[in-house]
Amino acid sequence: MSAHAAGGRSELAVIARLEELLNVRVPPGETYLGDDAAVLRAPSGQLLFATDMVVEGVHFDLALGSPVDAGWKALAVNVSDIAAMGGVATHAVVALGVPGGTDPDAVFEGLRLAASQYGVALVGGDLSASPQLSISVAIVGETAGLGPVLRSGASPGEELWATGPLGGSAAGLAALRAARGADEPPAGGLQRLYLRPSARPAEGRLAARLGATAMIDVSDGLASDVGQMAARSGVGVVIDHVPVREGASLDEALGGGEDYELVFALPAGRDPGARFRQAGLRSPSRIGSLLEDPAERRLGDGPLPEVGWVHELG
Amino acid sequence: MSAHAAGGRSELAVIARLEELLNVRVPPGETYLGDDAAVLRAPSGQLLFATDMVVEGVHFDLALGSPVDAGWKALAVNVSDIAAMGGVATHAVVALGVPGGTDPDAVFEGLRLAASQYGVALVGGDLSASPQLSISVAIVGETAGLGPVLRSGASPGEELWATGPLGGSAAGLAALRAARGADEPPAGGLQRLYLRPSARPAEGRLAARLGATAMIDVSDGLASDVGQMAARSGVGVVIDHVPVREGASLDEALGGGEDYELVFALPAGRDPGARFRQAGLRSPSRIGSLLEDPAERRLGDGPLPEVGWVHELG
Repeated sequence: MSAHAAGGRSELAVIARLEELLNVRVPPGETYLGDDAAVLRAPSGQLLFATDMVVEGVHFDLALGSPVDAGWKALAVNVSDIAAMGGVATHAVVALGVPGGTDPDAVFEGLRLAASQYGVALVGGDLSASPQLSISVAIVGETAGLGPVLRSGASPGEELWATGPLGGSAAGLAALRAARGADEPPAGGLQRLYLRPSARPAEGRLAARLGATAMIDVSDGLASDVGQMAARSGVGVVIDHVPVREGASLDEALGGGEDYELVFALPAGRDPGARFRQAGLRSPSRIGSLLEDPAERRLGDGPLPEVGWVHELG
Repeated sequence: MSAHAAGGRSELAVIARLEELLNVRVPPGETYLGDDAAVLRAPSGQLLFATDMVVEGVHFDLALGSPVDAGWKALAVNVSDIAAMGGVATHAVVALGVPGGTDPDAVFEGLRLAASQYGVALVGGDLSASPQLSISVAIVGETAGLGPVLRSGASPGEELWATGPLGGSAAGLAALRAARGADEPPAGGLQRLYLRPSARPAEGRLAARLGATAMIDVSDGLASDVGQMAARSGVGVVIDHVPVREGASLDEALGGGEDYELVFALPAGRDPGARFRQAGLRSPSRIGSLLEDPAERRLGDGPLPEVGWVHELG
């Protein structure tokens, strides 16, 4: 943990503030903030390790959302990475670049809210001055007796399932842009799917328990992400049903990205719906299946469009 | 691993390039780049987890060093965090923000060189467009039967040791600034201590083995970092010998920072020199001792100056 030249506060003051803001219970034998590194119990099973960054002007626009939203999003997208392995996210660290006019406390509040929601402990970080807000979170998790479920494990003949409807984040962003300058926030509530996306850790865990052979989160857009899974697995894919979020378009569902629903492959004929409902989770939608020919990428009878979310805010 | 809007290359192309550049041997049962998260064996002992970022215009200046230097530094400072716990750094991920004019390959080359030097595997990352170069590395390591050596374990009466002379990085930065615009690089070679600092993992490991009760790396400056250790340990401190790097000043040694030597506490009367020399390492210098009164912070007979490196370039 170190913290330099951010807002004119001294390093010790910043660390003390972080400890106050992040205020987490530290289990016996573990050390979180305030040392050179956090000391954590060894994971149960294999260790999962990922990083995802959120950059102002690329991944979000402070004219559309708040620094609290940005902090939430940065943590949630990392939880999503661990969820997509069928793992359990446990601890995260954050490297935060903050411009003079932005309150780092608000970003920490968003990080703290998401960490609390997903049961992740924020155990360390670094803070720096920066010309624009940049939030790099790294996360560790554990396989804890299941998985890991890679992108590469799918086989021809298996079926693809999505944990929820898609396109809501892109539609929410469009609504926010359209309402810019208006007095009222956009109607419909889709903007929350963009500003405060939900990760699906329980869904990922259950998919792993039910024998998912491959899994990915929908971060770049269904077409792109399913294409990734197919490429890594060396199989083809046909999408024959796209679950579109109410208020979103098919294009937004296919190419919008940032929905953070999970897509997973199961052997044909296994409907996971009942098990998901028993667990209090939404029934997954069957969206397609995997094919022998790795060159085949179809949407119904036509080609699967090569679209993915382009990070350009305007 | 994801990679967006960086240099106009598609995500898949960037990941393929990363896999090529980082080209590491993946042990059986582990998965590195190309999935939602890396899958790693569980650590031996406790898990260590830290992050440190390097931001253009704050921590380095591309007019003084290259993107390769920046990549090296970002990885080395993270290795230093694990070294300061007495641990073994094993795996790192990087979130890289790259402006249009900067070649991410050069940054990756610096990261790769340092990873190779310190035996760390680069196992994942994220790449984004960004108005300035920003390199956030997160690292995991393991205690592997020793330590962890916290900042908080020092007791009154113990002695402080430093693994090497200090001030070289600050003097190197001053030399680079003075030579700016000149045809020749500065004489004396100190600039390399600033541009390509060395972490001290073998020294940290040996200090832990010899019973170090507290340890910290000199990132902000000896006075500030020793003050941190004393504060966390609830003890006072007197520095009675400052090992100054040839070509550097006492002020640079006390307040310059970024030397990444380690300072550790040992029970009085234990000179670790012979054991360090046997291991092929430089003999540590005894720099002072720890005092009963936590309010006492002395440099010889005077007060220990409250100085630390302020990250301002230009």
